[in-house]
Amino acid sequence: MVRIGFLKLGNIATSPMVELLLDERAEREDMEVRVVSSGANMGPEQSEKVAKDLITLKPDIAFVTSPNASTKGPTVARETLTKAGVPTVVISDGPKKLLEELKERGMGGIIVEADSMIGARREFLDPIEMAVFNADTIKVLSVTGVYNVVYEAIDSLIDQLKAGKKPELPLMDVTRSMAIEASGLSNPYAKAKAAAAYEMSKRVANLTAEACFKEKEWEVYTALCAAAHELMRSAAVLVDEAREIEKYGDSVLRKPHHRDGAVLRKRKLIEKPK
Amino acid sequence: MVRIGFLKLGNIATSPMVELLLDERAEREDMEVRVVSSGANMGPEQSEKVAKDLITLKPDIAFVTSPNASTKGPTVARETLTKAGVPTVVISDGPKKLLEELKERGMGGIIVEADSMIGARREFLDPIEMAVFNADTIKVLSVTGVYNVVYEAIDSLIDQLKAGKKPELPLMDVTRSMAIEASGLSNPYAKAKAAAAYEMSKRVANLTAEACFKEKEWEVYTALCAAAHELMRSAAVLVDEAREIEKYGDSVLRKPHHRDGAVLRKRKLIEKPK
Amino acid sequence: MVRIGFLKLGNIATSPMVELLLDERAEREDMEVRVVSSGANMGPEQSEKVAKDLITLKPDIAFVTSPNASTKGPTVARETLTKAGVPTVVISDGPKKLLEELKERGMGGIIVEADSMIGARREFLDPIEMAVFNADTIKVLSVTGVYNVVYEAIDSLIDQLKAGKKPELPLMDVTRSMAIEASGLSNPYAKAKAAAAYEMSKRVANLTAEACFKEKEWEVYTALCAAAHELMRSAAVLVDEAREIEKYGDSVLRKPHHRDGAVLRKRKLIEKPK
Amino acid sequence: MVRIGFLKLGNIATSPMVELLLDERAEREDMEVRVVSSGANMGPEQSEKVAKDLITLKPDIAFVTSPNASTKGPTVARETLTKAGVPTVVISDGPKKLLEELKERGMGGIIVEADSMIGARREFLDPIEMAVFNADTIKVLSVTGVYNVVYEAIDSLIDQLKAGKKPELPLMDVTRSMAIEASGLSNPYAKAKAAAAYEMSKRVANLTAEACFKEKEWEVYTALCAAAHELMRSAAVLVDEAREIEKYGDSVLRKPHHRDGAVLRKRKLIEKPK
Amino acid sequence: MVRIGFLKLGNIATSPMVELLLDERAEREDMEVRVVSSGANMGPEQSEKVAKDLITLKPDIAFVTSPNASTKGPTVARETLTKAGVPTVVISDGPKKLLEELKERGMGGIIVEADSMIGARREFLDPIEMAVFNADTIKVLSVTGVYNVVYEAIDSLIDQLKAGKKPELPLMDVTRSMAIEASGLSNPYAKAKAAAAYEMSKRVANLTAEACFKEKEWEVYTALCAAAHELMRSAAVLVDEAREIEKYGDSVLRKPHHRDGAVLRKRKLIEKPK
Amino acid sequence: MVRIGFLKLGNIATSPMVELLLDERAEREDMEVRVVSSGANMGPEQSEKVAKDLITLKPDIAFVTSPNASTKGPTVARETLTKAGVPTVVISDGPKKLLEELKERGMGGIIVEADSMIGARREFLDPIEMAVFNADTIKVLSVTGVYNVVYEAIDSLIDQLKAGKKPELPLMDVTRSMAIEASGLSNPYAKAKAAAAYEMSKRVANLTAEACFKEKEWEVYTALCAAAHELMRSAAVLVDEAREIEKYGDSVLRKPHHRDGAVLRKRKLIEKPK
Repeated sequence: MVRIGFLKLGNIATSPMVELLLDERAEREDMEVRVVSSGANMGPEQSEKVAKDLITLKPDIAFVTSPNASTKGPTVARETLTKAGVPTVVISDGPKKLLEELKERGMGGIIVEADSMIGARREFLDPIEMAVFNADTIKVLSVTGVYNVVYEAIDSLIDQLKAGKKPELPLMDVTRSMAIEASGLSNPYAKAKAAAAYEMSKRVANLTAEACFKEKEWEVYTALCAAAHELMRSAAVLVDEAREIEKYGDSVLRKPHHRDGAVLRKRKLIEKPK
Repeated sequence: MVRIGFLKLGNIATSPMVELLLDERAEREDMEVRVVSSGANMGPEQSEKVAKDLITLKPDIAFVTSPNASTKGPTVARETLTKAGVPTVVISDGPKKLLEELKERGMGGIIVEADSMIGARREFLDPIEMAVFNADTIKVLSVTGVYNVVYEAIDSLIDQLKAGKKPELPLMDVTRSMAIEASGLSNPYAKAKAAAAYEMSKRVANLTAEACFKEKEWEVYTALCAAAHELMRSAAVLVDEAREIEKYGDSVLRKPHHRDGAVLRKRKLIEKPK
Repeated sequence: MVRIGFLKLGNIATSPMVELLLDERAEREDMEVRVVSSGANMGPEQSEKVAKDLITLKPDIAFVTSPNASTKGPTVARETLTKAGVPTVVISDGPKKLLEELKERGMGGIIVEADSMIGARREFLDPIEMAVFNADTIKVLSVTGVYNVVYEAIDSLIDQLKAGKKPELPLMDVTRSMAIEASGLSNPYAKAKAAAAYEMSKRVANLTAEACFKEKEWEVYTALCAAAHELMRSAAVLVDEAREIEKYGDSVLRKPHHRDGAVLRKRKLIEKPK
Repeated sequence: MVRIGFLKLGNIATSPMVELLLDERAEREDMEVRVVSSGANMGPEQSEKVAKDLITLKPDIAFVTSPNASTKGPTVARETLTKAGVPTVVISDGPKKLLEELKERGMGGIIVEADSMIGARREFLDPIEMAVFNADTIKVLSVTGVYNVVYEAIDSLIDQLKAGKKPELPLMDVTRSMAIEASGLSNPYAKAKAAAAYEMSKRVANLTAEACFKEKEWEVYTALCAAAHELMRSAAVLVDEAREIEKYGDSVLRKPHHRDGAVLRKRKLIEKPK
Repeated sequence: MVRIGFLKLGNIATSPMVELLLDERAEREDMEVRVVSSGANMGPEQSEKVAKDLITLKPDIAFVTSPNASTKGPTVARETLTKAGVPTVVISDGPKKLLEELKERGMGGIIVEADSMIGARREFLDPIEMAVFNADTIKVLSVTGVYNVVYEAIDSLIDQLKAGKKPELPLMDVTRSMAIEASGLSNPYAKAKAAAAYEMSKRVANLTAEACFKEKEWEVYTALCAAAHELMRSAAVLVDEAREIEKYGDSVLRKPHHRDGAVLRKRKLIEKPK
Repeated sequence: MVRIGFLKLGNIATSPMVELLLDERAEREDMEVRVVSSGANMGPEQSEKVAKDLITLKPDIAFVTSPNASTKGPTVARETLTKAGVPTVVISDGPKKLLEELKERGMGGIIVEADSMIGARREFLDPIEMAVFNADTIKVLSVTGVYNVVYEAIDSLIDQLKAGKKPELPLMDVTRSMAIEASGLSNPYAKAKAAAAYEMSKRVANLTAEACFKEKEWEVYTALCAAAHELMRSAAVLVDEAREIEKYGDSVLRKPHHRDGAVLRKRKLIEKPK
């Protein structure tokens, strides 16, 4: 039995779903999961503490999810885990260039560029707006194939650990073409819509970064936050269209996990997965 | 500084967002959060283990989120926490009647009936379908006011703890009328749409329960799972309409948390929260 | 030539279409129809009168359509018809348990549970809202297959009468699975959407019953009526989606009646029915 | 107590709703309704028979609803009623020029030009397509104000009869501007959308007339029928938009009938009608 | 190298796209284009001037696009061109009867009846409303096949000129059935939707003609203009649906021009045109 | 009377509407327009020829519209015009840096960054796809305010010329914030949606540039072209939503040109412009 640890610092939309993607019906018998999180807070002290907490749970491998992995909190956390001998993989929305540094330090990294930053301004973001944005982003990351790339990378590590191998930690920047290929969409216009939605989702970060870090006038940054969330909402509408196309053709790809961790496949709704 | 613990066993759609709802922009200085989870798995052994893990993190209060809180895992977990002297509140999709038992044992409980069970059959549910369903449900729970009821109950407990009081643990069944009132929707047709979506969301469980627990023929239960998820998708479309109505009238209620935990309010997009 | 009588007391959404479903292009030469109705009113006196009026028209069989067939008006009407020797079948939204009683008394019954009650409160329902609700419900009952079940049952009775047999009066509770199967939808997601819409349509009655019979505060019951009608509107949107799926695949099932009452079949739009 | 008779020959979309529009909650105590119909069939013999049947029910006034009122069946029916001394008003989709003849003969007439003919070809029209078309048309006639014009004309006749007057039978061609004004829509774009939908609905007849009476090639007329029904579906979508606009502004006009037949008014959802 | 001249007087929605339809990727080497226009103005003097300007550019054939080709400006323009020996083809929204006159005078004519007049009233039409209407109309003319008919007629003339023949000038009234056939839509419901949209687009002119030429009251004609543009917007929505159907079936017909002017064909998105 | 010349080389979506935006109802008496174009072709020789043709028409000022104004054709054209003493303003989608060069050479420039390049690959783009893309882009540029910025800049030049002044040629890069402000949208969420659509429209160029200039594999660039056009279609859907919001609030800004070139204003549909 492999034990997978997740350290969640702050939030990106990959984070709330990531461990669930590995065992969507809670049936797997080949691995178990431990998650430790400090909630929205990702300060360095808290991050270090929860990293140590995770170490006490003795994971065979650890994934540190956070926004901007170059900030102090996530940095301290992954170093703490690595020092303790836990193979560690960063999952973050950026920055891409971090991948080199991670490589040098023997860590892994999965950069999910389409998992754009939220519009985190007090004049705009309240709990409900936050949850709505996460819902939209989760839908986008699901249908565009981003989640497929992420969980298949983790599944591959689990397989290596189950085989008693030292895992080869991935160093990947999840791009549009990787995601769309992994999405399993079969209709070419469904793919085109998903690709367009991917671009939209990725572009959200340009607006939120401007709103949160550059713009000083509150009327302007509030409007920018709203524009960014509208962009993500449109992306969610578009991926919904893409998935509907697959339903219309009865060709939705489904890849359920088997009890033993194997991945099955099916396309027609009324057929058995194989 | 109050420390709030979340023990997450298995998944309901309230679970991935719950701690984020308390501190949507990661600015609060009056409390901190610890989350421990065993992922999708909610077996009794694992549940007990993670409950003990959470105890070591010394939370002032603990929330145990899980589907069906009357099953063994969640039961063991909350008893473990209570025995250790941690005030404990159950957050679950049911059963309602558990509230009495919780009351007797000095625990709290928040039953979120609209947070319906997923269509957890191998012929239907794969990681992507799981995430899409969660995205839809998160949107429904957000806009219908369910999340408002939940986080406001937790905020109230935090306030009591901050004031040095022994917290009065809530025993609540979140109903449609409670939720819609908490939603802050101002247009009466937006409320009507949200109320209709609430009914739809709640009704999903009838279909998934039939699909997962009663129906034996795989062609039938697969079709039932699909119907259930279409129902949730329609509910998500409808709450989106409800929120759009508020946008069209520039009357979206926003209640951001202040740094000190206070809750501000605003309606017009371009106005300062107060 | 068989003569079919319809006695319409009050309104359910099956009622305005029921005789038209038997002869959609007014071409049948094997039967004729007589409808007598007292409009919206279904009081016992009026119901008895119109029942007697129908008897004078000498129908070979009579169908009594009404809401809640256990109320006095419909009860008197069917007993009057039965006493006069007219084989009588009740068509109503409920109650289901009436079927036993009908059986005992040698009558037939078709309970259409998805044909939910309207939000009949003066603060809410005016002529236009009434018509809009009926339009939505008619669409839902059409596409989900409910109407198919109903008219096929009547067609079967006509066939028996044409063959000179004593008709075997049906005793049926039209359920979701019966309806969806009768709908002839071919795409499994179209079926799933129709099934979800069926649930929504059926659920409307919970809200309208609460609004019309339980709730006393007018602000509350008005809002409940509005929620109920939004739920039916969403169901109508969803069945429209389901039918569009069939159009997209050029697989809409069409079963036109032939002049002689036979039922033909076709799927492709540009093909002859057989 | 005034008794209103409806003789329904064949079907137009005004027909299934017309008596219900007068007493939408079945509460009126100032009038009663009798409907007699021969179903879809509107042959001269059947029409005469049911006219005589209606006469035996002693209506104070009779309304004869049918498609194309210049055909034999409806003509015989209204003459039969008139001969029997029953004040008679034709309600039909045309022809307009009939109004003059009706005037000469002392009858009334309401021509509902937007209530377009269905695509009645065996290769296209089956019971479900028929019902779906009626649902769409009912929605269009409801929201565009056509139904308002019709039922207000009938209500006016009832008032005259209640006052013991000889009713002044209306001779009206329901036009777009009459309808839109009667609709009570308040937003000017809602009116514009309703007006556009009215044009679409009216235009349907051009396509169905071509399909049913002129075109001989079955592939062509089948396609024309489909185009006509798509046109009506689009009109229904558009009036739905128009009504939603009023919901968004909380200004839906509601004019419920009082128990005594008076017409009340309200605009805000949560307000009492006056 | 053939030189094609376009004289654009005033605007119809065929006009802004017409020369681009011949060489959509700017690759053709077998012909060149000259356009001269006087903008929105189509007065007789200006029209004559620009006609002379076009003559100096020595086109092998000239197309005069304008609304209402029977007015003075377009008439003078085409006569000027014809006198100068330039084969001339009128492209206009009407009137149809002009075709006979054109035939007598040795000119060609393409009447595009679905290219309806805009709502040109100062209380309604501003630059943005004008552009939005054109966008909707361009989409309608594209998908319904109208543009196909037009550019294929021109391509045929180019082929004749390239072959050194005296071109046979077309005299065509572009009808619904010609357009839908040329559209290349393959799904029969896509065709039905396109046909319905065609009718809507054509009907716009009835409303705008009434608004611009008959109605004197400004409140009334402003509302009529708005209704007309809503009608075109609905038509655009409907053709979008039609094209989506083709995308869902991966059967969008594409007929790109080859460098040498030949027209290639393809249906699947990922296949080479032939 | 001022004479405005437009030289159109190749196509961007600003080009087909630009002169019409100045005189949307063809009523202006203070200026006249001359357009000369070489159609889709923008080669250097053709561009020079048509520039000379425009010079012979003696415009008081000339606007050269084209994609990528740094290519040879547009460059030769504007230099030819400038040498002939015609004040010349470039209107193009880029590059921005050209503005400096234009300034040095005494020319004006309006860079419309949101007017993104089309997916000009033979495997994808045929005449209909081209026209559909233009329709979508025209709608986006209309509602986001881009067209407002452009035509107001030209109107200002006309005013200067009418006043006998030497016109101050504009050097402007039309940005999102300029456009949204010029759009006159009043609801803040309408603005947010328009801003999001602007970003989407601008982003299209990233995909089409990759598809047309970088990518060599035809399967890949064809898919990229399709994604780009889906992105523009989504932007068009979103601006349509934005405009609908204004309709719902009866606050669409309309700024019709008066006969004398003055710009009037109104918001309510049924009110006179001032």
